Amino acid sequence: MLLLTLRGVVRGVKGCAIKAAYFKTKVSFSSSCSTVTKAMATQIPLSEDFFFRQLFDRESCTYTYLLADTNVKEAVIIDPVFELVDRDVNVVRELGFTVKFAMNTHMHADHITGTGLLKRMLPGCQSLISRNSGAKADVYVEPGENVTFGRHQLEVRATPGHTNGCVTYVSHEQGLAFTGDAVLIRGCGRTDFQEGDARTLFHSVHDQIFTLPDNFRLYPAHDYKGQTCTTVGEEKQFNPRLSKPIDEFVEIMANLNLAYPKMMDKCLPANTVCGLHDL
Amino acid sequence: MLLLTLRGVVRGVKGCAIKAAYFKTKVSFSSSCSTVTKAMATQIPLSEDFFFRQLFDRESCTYTYLLADTNVKEAVIIDPVFELVDRDVNVVRELGFTVKFAMNTHMHADHITGTGLLKRMLPGCQSLISRNSGAKADVYVEPGENVTFGRHQLEVRATPGHTNGCVTYVSHEQGLAFTGDAVLIRGCGRTDFQEGDARTLFHSVHDQIFTLPDNFRLYPAHDYKGQTCTTVGEEKQFNPRLSKPIDEFVEIMANLNLAYPKMMDKCLPANTVCGLHDL
Repeated sequence: MLLLTLRGVVRGVKGCAIKAAYFKTKVSFSSSCSTVTKAMATQIPLSEDFFFRQLFDRESCTYTYLLADTNVKEAVIIDPVFELVDRDVNVVRELGFTVKFAMNTHMHADHITGTGLLKRMLPGCQSLISRNSGAKADVYVEPGENVTFGRHQLEVRATPGHTNGCVTYVSHEQGLAFTGDAVLIRGCGRTDFQEGDARTLFHSVHDQIFTLPDNFRLYPAHDYKGQTCTTVGEEKQFNPRLSKPIDEFVEIMANLNLAYPKMMDKCLPANTVCGLHDL
Repeated sequence: MLLLTLRGVVRGVKGCAIKAAYFKTKVSFSSSCSTVTKAMATQIPLSEDFFFRQLFDRESCTYTYLLADTNVKEAVIIDPVFELVDRDVNVVRELGFTVKFAMNTHMHADHITGTGLLKRMLPGCQSLISRNSGAKADVYVEPGENVTFGRHQLEVRATPGHTNGCVTYVSHEQGLAFTGDAVLIRGCGRTDFQEGDARTLFHSVHDQIFTLPDNFRLYPAHDYKGQTCTTVGEEKQFNPRLSKPIDEFVEIMANLNLAYPKMMDKCLPANTVCGLHDL
């Protein structure tokens, strides 16, 4: 029945081939058509006093997150981008927040972090990164610790594999996790430079992220297709890499043949000092 | 006291001028520093059975929204983009949703709508637009009507000014509104082509959108700076155009001196038939 339905759709797509080609659309679909489980799509409501704002850098396709406790107005910024710090500072000022930490999920290789500049511009703001990152910052966090702002907490989970110092920040109360480059939406961070290791990444994701409830929302550091969010359940089922057995995953990652990251030689020296730490 | 703090920050910014210039960042700030009201930042939790997913087109900077009732799995897609229909259909299929309506906030001039192609690819899906849009669709809505999917409802509010047929879809229960090109984040749609009229737009926004509670989230059809969401309270206070008195607003809009929309001559003929309605 499902097959029949699919074939019908494919025929329909072929029928519009000329017009589609005219508009240069690419008509191709995932073969993983499935039925959502209730657990995957049931929303976990954000608390009234939990402020959440996602921001995007169209250049490096990086997501930055501004979170705050709206009662005491204490905030954190996750993975800020150097060139967009003025945008982020504007929002913070308009909303009257005090940024406690400008923090990174890991030492990025594709953009310069904005944490150093944020420190300069927002008095009292400290830079924060995992101790294993090897980057300089005011505050180092270890797996199992919590980053607090107001009454809210983000648990630090070690998710190495893209880099040794990659962490995922988890809000259990809000049902969301900031996965950096560990889990991307229907993808994952590359493992062919810095301290990349596919086997390590697989274990990180399966042990530390896929063990969260299926309806936990995952917010990655990047997306290149305009997708803004996913859930644990979706990635367990539909991630074309991470849903595979470990050996297949390792093989996929070994054969991506990706280009050398064009920004890496510029970004890594800056990010070692958390984006101009001593600015 | 506020002035002193601001000056301190400005000094700080000047101090890093050399390094900032090196990285080609533009250090400029809104002068509208203010304190957030509690009402503005207090979140309205989404219902557990209300699915919300924002999607982005990096080319035209258009936001598409997938909403669903997770119990009966009935969905709507707002402002889909022709070239990204395969991405949207993938998500719909993976999550097991049935799309009832592929709908537009208005007849766009900057991208071809995906509603026609969605109809073709998703059996049972109907295109929907406001009657005043002048575009062809399966279902026409009028101000005051509700678009329903599962148990959820979107109220249709007329918000002309960018075009005659612009509407805003409001979910009162979830505390959110899809404003199309009426309210953009710290901006608004242009009023210098199609049936654009600045005075009309001002009244639409102030009468139909700014009268919603301050903490209602506003999701626009576009953003060009990587901002994903705003609130009624923020735009009432910080929108550099719409927060002004009507005559000042009209003058601002008359002097934008924007370039002719490069996609308009291609998009409007297609969007008149809701993105290839008879595909």
